[in-house]
Amino acid sequence: MDLFPILEELTQKTPSKILLVVLDGVGGLPQQPGGPTELAAAKTPNLDALAQKSALGLLTPVYPGLAPGSGPGHLSLFGYDPFKYLVGRGALSAIGIGADFQDGDIGVRGNFATLDAQGNVLDRRAGRPSDEENRRIVAKLKEAIEEIEGVRIHFYTESEHRFVVILRTGGLGDKVTDTDPQKTGVPPLQSHAHDPNDTASAKTAAILNTLSERIREVLKDEPKINGALFRGISERPKFPSMGQVYKLTPACIASYPMYKGVASLVGMEVLPVEGVEDAPEGKIKVLQENWKRFDFFYLHFKKTDSTGEDGNFAEKAHKVEIFDALLPKLLALEPDVLAITGDHSTPSILKAHSWHPVPLLLHAPYLRNDAAQRFTEDEAAKGSLGHLRGVELMPLLLAHAGKLQKYGA
Amino acid sequence: MDLFPILEELTQKTPSKILLVVLDGVGGLPQQPGGPTELAAAKTPNLDALAQKSALGLLTPVYPGLAPGSGPGHLSLFGYDPFKYLVGRGALSAIGIGADFQDGDIGVRGNFATLDAQGNVLDRRAGRPSDEENRRIVAKLKEAIEEIEGVRIHFYTESEHRFVVILRTGGLGDKVTDTDPQKTGVPPLQSHAHDPNDTASAKTAAILNTLSERIREVLKDEPKINGALFRGISERPKFPSMGQVYKLTPACIASYPMYKGVASLVGMEVLPVEGVEDAPEGKIKVLQENWKRFDFFYLHFKKTDSTGEDGNFAEKAHKVEIFDALLPKLLALEPDVLAITGDHSTPSILKAHSWHPVPLLLHAPYLRNDAAQRFTEDEAAKGSLGHLRGVELMPLLLAHAGKLQKYGA
Repeated sequence: MDLFPILEELTQKTPSKILLVVLDGVGGLPQQPGGPTELAAAKTPNLDALAQKSALGLLTPVYPGLAPGSGPGHLSLFGYDPFKYLVGRGALSAIGIGADFQDGDIGVRGNFATLDAQGNVLDRRAGRPSDEENRRIVAKLKEAIEEIEGVRIHFYTESEHRFVVILRTGGLGDKVTDTDPQKTGVPPLQSHAHDPNDTASAKTAAILNTLSERIREVLKDEPKINGALFRGISERPKFPSMGQVYKLTPACIASYPMYKGVASLVGMEVLPVEGVEDAPEGKIKVLQENWKRFDFFYLHFKKTDSTGEDGNFAEKAHKVEIFDALLPKLLALEPDVLAITGDHSTPSILKAHSWHPVPLLLHAPYLRNDAAQRFTEDEAAKGSLGHLRGVELMPLLLAHAGKLQKYGA
Repeated sequence: MDLFPILEELTQKTPSKILLVVLDGVGGLPQQPGGPTELAAAKTPNLDALAQKSALGLLTPVYPGLAPGSGPGHLSLFGYDPFKYLVGRGALSAIGIGADFQDGDIGVRGNFATLDAQGNVLDRRAGRPSDEENRRIVAKLKEAIEEIEGVRIHFYTESEHRFVVILRTGGLGDKVTDTDPQKTGVPPLQSHAHDPNDTASAKTAAILNTLSERIREVLKDEPKINGALFRGISERPKFPSMGQVYKLTPACIASYPMYKGVASLVGMEVLPVEGVEDAPEGKIKVLQENWKRFDFFYLHFKKTDSTGEDGNFAEKAHKVEIFDALLPKLLALEPDVLAITGDHSTPSILKAHSWHPVPLLLHAPYLRNDAAQRFTEDEAAKGSLGHLRGVELMPLLLAHAGKLQKYGA
């Protein structure tokens, strides 16, 4: 059920500050039965000390058995039901590459393809070109195609054969079919609106069909990349903002485009972070400098996920230790409510996102006694917070921060 | 999701008896980290002995982070989804003061207000009069205004500036706007139906507008209380009864109007209780005398909540001890299923309802082994029942009582 109408009524603005730290993919698995997980193997004196005066629990971000992508995982942590607040594929790609993607824009996932002389698809991925080759083609398209019927066309490289198109102007709908036929030997499909009376979507379909032809003209002398297939055509979703629902003034501190994009969808102000890659020190500096301006901070660390995806157990444990060393700086800011958790598990033995619950640590007023001694999966299972769903986290944080009034008399 | 259609099909009438004891606001918090809660501090030899042969668990009455009022807290324990089975504010006030409030009646929350010579609101609370002054004005209104357009008007004192009006006759709707402008310097608003085609609600609005004028006439010589503002106009809700859904013959044993009112909404027979205030002994006597007539008893004790609201840790613990002393009399009746829990937590350090889960004790046949040794928050967290939601309690009690058939073949 969607608790937003109720939360909108019950939340109140207060000076208290909430800091939500997301260690991406932090949950793990032992390398062999009985062994430690990455979190258990890490030496984390600061997290250990904090855990002993905090409450812990386990959090299933989306649903038991479901390994969430970054979108649903994060939306859940922000309190947005990931089965209701959907982000279309095209929109997610546009957000993921950090494109300039605004309200009213339509995001489209493109595949560069090889077509034969009759216009039938020979290879739906054009032999998987290099990113460099992709960029060369995208530059050529940008040069040649700036607009169609008054709609601005923006091209972006994603990787290999994947690119993103953003259509900009008001009045476009996204209820249209893909042009990707999902097989070879046939021509690209014509896009059309699901409902012929939906003129906004019909306009999008017409533009995409023209764009398809224009791309073939521009690339007609290319040996491999001489066509494009469109999928996941979707507008930038319009979600209620955290300001509206929770009466928070929220900020995002993250380095990677995907996380900044999802944060912007829920109405966070995305603060610029200096430094390369995960930039942990740069993030702490931004947090310190902006501490007075906001009452909710989402602080994201990526590398616990990427090292898990690489299958590097020791390196994932090391990334936890790097966070542990930074923790005193977070505590020095004295957040009223501090939560540390993940958006999903990424066990290094799986080299992928998994469905396992993540540990949750809550340092806040009004906690019960807690048996958990460390921020690990095993200890969190003993914690006083029990086992929560991702969407249940925000109401709990708001309650501990004194921002949630009684429900009913 | 609403399980009622399924429960209606699966429940069966049997002779077994269920006793649900609600210690209002029983959940607590330690006064300092690591210290005992009120329950842990109380000396409870009888509860301890019972816990050792019972199963325990934690119950989140409504939703993580939500501190429930008495209405949603109790409805959840009775198995009524508190997000679906809503009680309007006016109805809840009428129920809370124990007014004669019947099906088809409309309940209205009134504020006595001070209006200036132009009819603008000077003070929305008329200087917060004493309850005695409130009663004097209510008596004057009762005398002067008995009906409007064939609708009977009943006035009740609530407290200070708050009073309740009940409109009695069939054919009235409650989809109308408030007359309280929520600010001073403007006249009271005219009530109107949300939908002008809703004639039943339009009639209510017309009556309230007339009532507003009549009250001003009657009170025109009063120095302070010379007007009234109406809010939360709502009919007595019509909920499916526990008899219908569970095939139970349920009884309520409670002293305070609010709890008797909520029990009557779900179709319990409210048994009269002798004695003052919480009247623990009086309640036990009623339970004993009526033991044969019913198969479900809701037995309510209020003082664990009121002492928590007062912030009196020691006194709250003492109220638990008073209940502990009565427990052998409950056990002597040999209920087939005995559940002891709360409708929400009221930690004395918060002096208010809170969102923390409450302990649940279940003494019944067919229990698994259980590690919990006492009826406390910490021990309940170790219990074999795990962590439940309020609405999940009734199916569990019905199952242990042998009243719930297999779901599906």
